[in-house]
Amino acid sequence: MTDAAPARRTYSYLGPAGTFTEAALDQVPEARGQQWRPVHNVGEALSDVLEGRSDAAMIAIENSVEGGVTTTLDALATLPGLRIVGEYLVKVDFVLVAAPGTRLEDVTVVAAHPVAYAQCYGWLGEHLPRHQHVPAASNVASALGILDGSLPADAAIAAPGIVQHHELELLADGIGDNDNAVTRFVLVARTVAPAPPTGADKTSLIVELPEDHAGALLELLEQFSTRGINLSLLQSRPIGDELGRYRFVLDADGHIQDERMADALLGIRRFSPRVVFLGSYPRADRRIVQYPERYADDVFVEARDWLRGLIAGEPEA
Amino acid sequence: MTDAAPARRTYSYLGPAGTFTEAALDQVPEARGQQWRPVHNVGEALSDVLEGRSDAAMIAIENSVEGGVTTTLDALATLPGLRIVGEYLVKVDFVLVAAPGTRLEDVTVVAAHPVAYAQCYGWLGEHLPRHQHVPAASNVASALGILDGSLPADAAIAAPGIVQHHELELLADGIGDNDNAVTRFVLVARTVAPAPPTGADKTSLIVELPEDHAGALLELLEQFSTRGINLSLLQSRPIGDELGRYRFVLDADGHIQDERMADALLGIRRFSPRVVFLGSYPRADRRIVQYPERYADDVFVEARDWLRGLIAGEPEA
Amino acid sequence: MTDAAPARRTYSYLGPAGTFTEAALDQVPEARGQQWRPVHNVGEALSDVLEGRSDAAMIAIENSVEGGVTTTLDALATLPGLRIVGEYLVKVDFVLVAAPGTRLEDVTVVAAHPVAYAQCYGWLGEHLPRHQHVPAASNVASALGILDGSLPADAAIAAPGIVQHHELELLADGIGDNDNAVTRFVLVARTVAPAPPTGADKTSLIVELPEDHAGALLELLEQFSTRGINLSLLQSRPIGDELGRYRFVLDADGHIQDERMADALLGIRRFSPRVVFLGSYPRADRRIVQYPERYADDVFVEARDWLRGLIAGEPEA
Amino acid sequence: MTDAAPARRTYSYLGPAGTFTEAALDQVPEARGQQWRPVHNVGEALSDVLEGRSDAAMIAIENSVEGGVTTTLDALATLPGLRIVGEYLVKVDFVLVAAPGTRLEDVTVVAAHPVAYAQCYGWLGEHLPRHQHVPAASNVASALGILDGSLPADAAIAAPGIVQHHELELLADGIGDNDNAVTRFVLVARTVAPAPPTGADKTSLIVELPEDHAGALLELLEQFSTRGINLSLLQSRPIGDELGRYRFVLDADGHIQDERMADALLGIRRFSPRVVFLGSYPRADRRIVQYPERYADDVFVEARDWLRGLIAGEPEA
Repeated sequence: MTDAAPARRTYSYLGPAGTFTEAALDQVPEARGQQWRPVHNVGEALSDVLEGRSDAAMIAIENSVEGGVTTTLDALATLPGLRIVGEYLVKVDFVLVAAPGTRLEDVTVVAAHPVAYAQCYGWLGEHLPRHQHVPAASNVASALGILDGSLPADAAIAAPGIVQHHELELLADGIGDNDNAVTRFVLVARTVAPAPPTGADKTSLIVELPEDHAGALLELLEQFSTRGINLSLLQSRPIGDELGRYRFVLDADGHIQDERMADALLGIRRFSPRVVFLGSYPRADRRIVQYPERYADDVFVEARDWLRGLIAGEPEA
Repeated sequence: MTDAAPARRTYSYLGPAGTFTEAALDQVPEARGQQWRPVHNVGEALSDVLEGRSDAAMIAIENSVEGGVTTTLDALATLPGLRIVGEYLVKVDFVLVAAPGTRLEDVTVVAAHPVAYAQCYGWLGEHLPRHQHVPAASNVASALGILDGSLPADAAIAAPGIVQHHELELLADGIGDNDNAVTRFVLVARTVAPAPPTGADKTSLIVELPEDHAGALLELLEQFSTRGINLSLLQSRPIGDELGRYRFVLDADGHIQDERMADALLGIRRFSPRVVFLGSYPRADRRIVQYPERYADDVFVEARDWLRGLIAGEPEA
Repeated sequence: MTDAAPARRTYSYLGPAGTFTEAALDQVPEARGQQWRPVHNVGEALSDVLEGRSDAAMIAIENSVEGGVTTTLDALATLPGLRIVGEYLVKVDFVLVAAPGTRLEDVTVVAAHPVAYAQCYGWLGEHLPRHQHVPAASNVASALGILDGSLPADAAIAAPGIVQHHELELLADGIGDNDNAVTRFVLVARTVAPAPPTGADKTSLIVELPEDHAGALLELLEQFSTRGINLSLLQSRPIGDELGRYRFVLDADGHIQDERMADALLGIRRFSPRVVFLGSYPRADRRIVQYPERYADDVFVEARDWLRGLIAGEPEA
Repeated sequence: MTDAAPARRTYSYLGPAGTFTEAALDQVPEARGQQWRPVHNVGEALSDVLEGRSDAAMIAIENSVEGGVTTTLDALATLPGLRIVGEYLVKVDFVLVAAPGTRLEDVTVVAAHPVAYAQCYGWLGEHLPRHQHVPAASNVASALGILDGSLPADAAIAAPGIVQHHELELLADGIGDNDNAVTRFVLVARTVAPAPPTGADKTSLIVELPEDHAGALLELLEQFSTRGINLSLLQSRPIGDELGRYRFVLDADGHIQDERMADALLGIRRFSPRVVFLGSYPRADRRIVQYPERYADDVFVEARDWLRGLIAGEPEA
C-alpha cells in the first residue's frame, strides 16, 4: 500500500474513565474512534495541546452551582496559544456511597472532590451537620479512596454510575442541592481561525482592567451593553499580584464575525491593557442568539457606507 | 485676448454693509476682491448657495450670550445639500443712540434687533426699567428707523460704528452686558469633501433622537464621551411637530478623518433616525484639539490589526 | 362699613388685549374678575411680582415650534424669589393681513413678531421667497404698524382674531407651518410652598453644570433616568460669560414631594454649583405621570426602614 | 462566692492548631485568654455562632491569589443572622515537605489543600510538570497525611512552621507563586449594630441582580461610582439554580453611617431583589478612606436642608 492511513487524532481529558469530563468528550462526534488520553490535571491537559502531544483537550470551565472552575480560568488567562473550539454540557448528579455495611448515621468524614462537595453542601448540612470533609482528586477517586483506605473517610460523594463498577453501599442518591446542576466543558485546541458563524455562537474573552476601580468594570460592561450583546458568564479572578486587582472572564452571545461583536472587541482592545480572545464557537444548546434589530450587521454596513460618502463629499441620498 | 479671466466668486451675507456679518466675511482671505451679495435673511442666503447664485454664504450660528441662532440652526437642519467650510468669530459691542437732542431720561421705547436687545437686557433693566422694546431687522435698521421715523422708538441699540455714518446722539456706549460677547459665524457652501484635518478642527452635526426621553440623549452624549471627544456646542431645538420632541445641534472637537470621530459618527448613525453632517472645518481660534492618548489614531489602527489577526487564526504576538 | 372687601388680586401679562398671553390668563379661574395688568416685556412682568405690584404674572415659556422662550428662561435663571404655580397651553395659528386693497403678489416686506415669523417661515419661503422681514413688538403691533404706517411693511403676520377688531385685508390664513403649534405659558408668583401633588405634576428646574464638558450633562441626565423620571423639556442656554458654557432648563414629570423626584433633586443639588427650583405644579394637560413600579414612593420608604434596621442591628425580617 | 466570674467568650475557627485561621484569630485582642473552638469546616463555624455555641467565628473570605473563598461566600449569602465585625490579614507562604529521605526528583504525587495548591501552581509546573494533585483537608492535614500514609502522595504543600512540629524533609521553601500573597479573614458574630465609623472602614454586601444581563450589573456598579465609593472586592458567584444567574459579593470603602454609603445602600435596596448587608467594620490595614470632597457628609446634609426649604416655601438663601 502506498497511501498512509490518516493519522489518528488525540484528545486529552481529566481521567480516569468514568469522570464527567469523559462524558463531555463522549459528545464530540469527531473524537469517536480517536485516541483518548487521560491526564491528571488541567495544566497537563493544556500542555499536551501546546506541546503537540494532543490535538485538543476537554476541560471543565464552569459549573452551574460552583461557578467558574478557577484553575481552568487561570490557566487560560496565562497560557498563550490556545483557542476554544467547542462547548459541551453535562448534567451532574451525586450519590453518597460507603463501604458495604456502613450506615448513614455512622458517617463522620466525607470524601469528595471540592466542587462536588460544594454542590451537596445543603444536603450534608441537613443530614450530616457535624461531618468533616476530606477533599478527593476526582469523583472517582473519592470512592476508590474509601475502598482502598487511602482516604481517611467513611463515605464518599461520587457520580451515580460508580455503583455499577464497584461494590459500594448506596447511602443516599440525588443528594445534589440543585436538580438542574450542569457542568460546562470546553474543547481547547491550538490557535486556529474561528469556525464560521452559525447564528448560535458564543465568544469567550479574558480581560484585564486598566485600573483597579469600579469605573473600569463599568466601561468594560458598556462595551457590550451599548452594542446589544448579552453576557452569559462574568467571573472575576484575582490577577494575583495584590488584593483588589482582578481580571474578568466573559462569555458573550455572538461570534467575532458578527459586526456588533467585532466592534465590541475593538472597543475592548483599545481600552484594556490585556485581552485574551479565547474563541468564537457554537453554543452547546444551539439556541439562536437574539439581539435588537438596531445592532444587525446591515446597520453597521450602512453606517460605514454613509461615512465613506461624507468623507468623499457625496451628496446625501 | 485668448485667456478667459477666472470667474469671480460670489458670497452672500446678511446686509446691509456695516453688519457684524459683513465683519465676519471680511475675515475670509479668499473672499477679498470677489463679489459680495447682501441678502435679507438666512433663508435667502442659503437659497443663493443651493440654487447656484452664490458660491458660499456667511451666516451667524451662535452667540456667546444668546446661544444658537435658531433660524440658522433650523435652516441647516432641514435644507439638505449644504456644508460648513469655515468658522469666524466677531466680537460684539453695543451703543445706545438717538436723534440729536434726545436725553437718556426721555427714552421710553427702544428699537433693537432681538439678539442685540437680549445682550443689553441687564443694562436696560438698570437704566431704563420701564422701557418698551420695538424689534428692528438689524443693528443698522434700528438706528435708521428712529432717524427716518419708520420705527416708533426714541432710541436705538446699534453697533458702535454707527455714529461715524449717521448724525446720532450717543446716549451710552459699552452697554452690552458681557464684555467678552462674541458671535460665531460659519461659511456655508454646497456639499463638498471636508478639507484635510489640521489638528485644530471642529465637526458640526444635527442629530434627531430615536425616542423622546432622557435615555436617548444620554446615549447620544455617550457616543462622544466614550471616545474622549469634547463638545463645545450643544443646543436643543424642537423638531416642531409636537411639544417635547427635540433635535440636537452639536459641535464636537475634531475632524471626521480622526479615527475617534469617525467611530463616534458611525455609532451615532446606527442609533439616530436622522443625522445631518454639517462639516469638519478648522476652528476659528486655531486651538489644537487635546484628547486622551488612549483615543489616538494609532490605537484604533492597532486594534483593527489585532482583530484581523484573531479572525485569521494568527498566533498572538 | 365693618367688613373689608377682599383685596383684589393683580395679574401682569404681556399686553395689549388680544395677545396669546391674554388668552392664557383667560384660562385661570382664580384670575376672573381680578385686576389684569398689561406690561411691555417679561422683565417688567416679573418685576411687578417681585416688587409686589402684582400677585402673579403670566409669561410664555416654550413654543412647540420655536422652543424655549429665551428671554423668559434667562430671566427665571437669574431672578431669585419666583416660583411657577401653574401651566397653560394656547393653540397658536396665524394669518397674513394687509391694508385693504393689497394683493399677495404685491407684498415685499412682512412685519411679524420674531417668534411668529419663525413659525410661518416655511409658508413664507414658498409663497413669498424674496420677502424681507421687519420685526414687530407683538402679534397685535405688527398689524397696527402697517395700518398706521409706523412699520415699513406691506403685510403683517397676526393672530386670527385681528380681523374682527381692525379693518384689514385677509391675504392668507392658516399660514403657520405646523397645525399643532402650541405655546406653553406659566403663571409665576413669589416663592411659596408648592401645592400638594395631584399625580399629574411637573417640576421645573434650571441647573448649571460643574464643568463645561459632555460628562457633566450625562451626570445630570442620569439623576433623572436612574430614578425613572422622564423629561419633557430640556433646553440649553448659554450662561453668557463665554462660548461653550451652558445652563440647562428642565421640565421633569412628577412633584417635589414624590420620593423619586425628591431623591433626584438631592442628587442634583449635591452635584451642581447652582440649581434653581422653579416649582412643582399641575400639568396643563392633566395627564397622570407614569413611572416604573420600582420607583414608587413605598419602595423608597421601605428601603429607608431597612437601612434604619441595619444601623440599629435589628435582625432582618 | 458572691461574684460570678465573667463568662468566657468562645471563638470558633478552622483547626487544628497551626492553620492560617488560627494565626488570624491570634490577631484579635479580645480573643486572648478566651475559649478557642477548632471546627472542621466553615459551615460548622457559622452554625456555632448561629446556634449560640460560639460568640464569633474566624473564617477565611478572600485570598490574594485565589480570590474569594467560595464556600465562605456562599454560606454568608444564604445564612441569615450573621454580621462581620472585624477583618484580619495573614501573609501566606508555602513549603514543599516529604518523608525523610525523599528527593525532589522522586516526587510524583503532591498532597495539598486546593487553595494552597493553586498558589503554588506556577512553581509546580516548572519543577514538577508531571505531578498529580491529591487534595488535603488543610495545610496541616496534607503533611500529616503523607507521614501516616493516609494520603497517597509522596510530598505535601504546607505552611512553613510545619517543620518545627513534625519530622519532615524540607524539599523546597518559598514555593508560593506570589511573594505578597495574603489571606483575608473576617470575624463573624450574630447580627449586631455596626461599631461607629473610624474613617478607615469597609462595608461588605451580597447583592442579587434583578435580571441576568450586563445592564443590571452596570446599574449595581453605578450605585457606587455615582457616589464616589471605591470597591475593593467584586466577586461573582452563581446563584446555583441555572447557568448564567449570579449574585455579587462586594467590599466597598466606607461605613454604613457615612452619608454616601447610606445613600448607595438605599439605591441598591430599591433595585435588587435581595441584598445581604454583611457589616461595616474597621479595615485590617487601618488606611483612611479617601473620597472626592463632593461626596462628603455635609454635602448630603446641606442638600437635605435645601430640599426641606423648597418644600416649605422658604426663600432661597
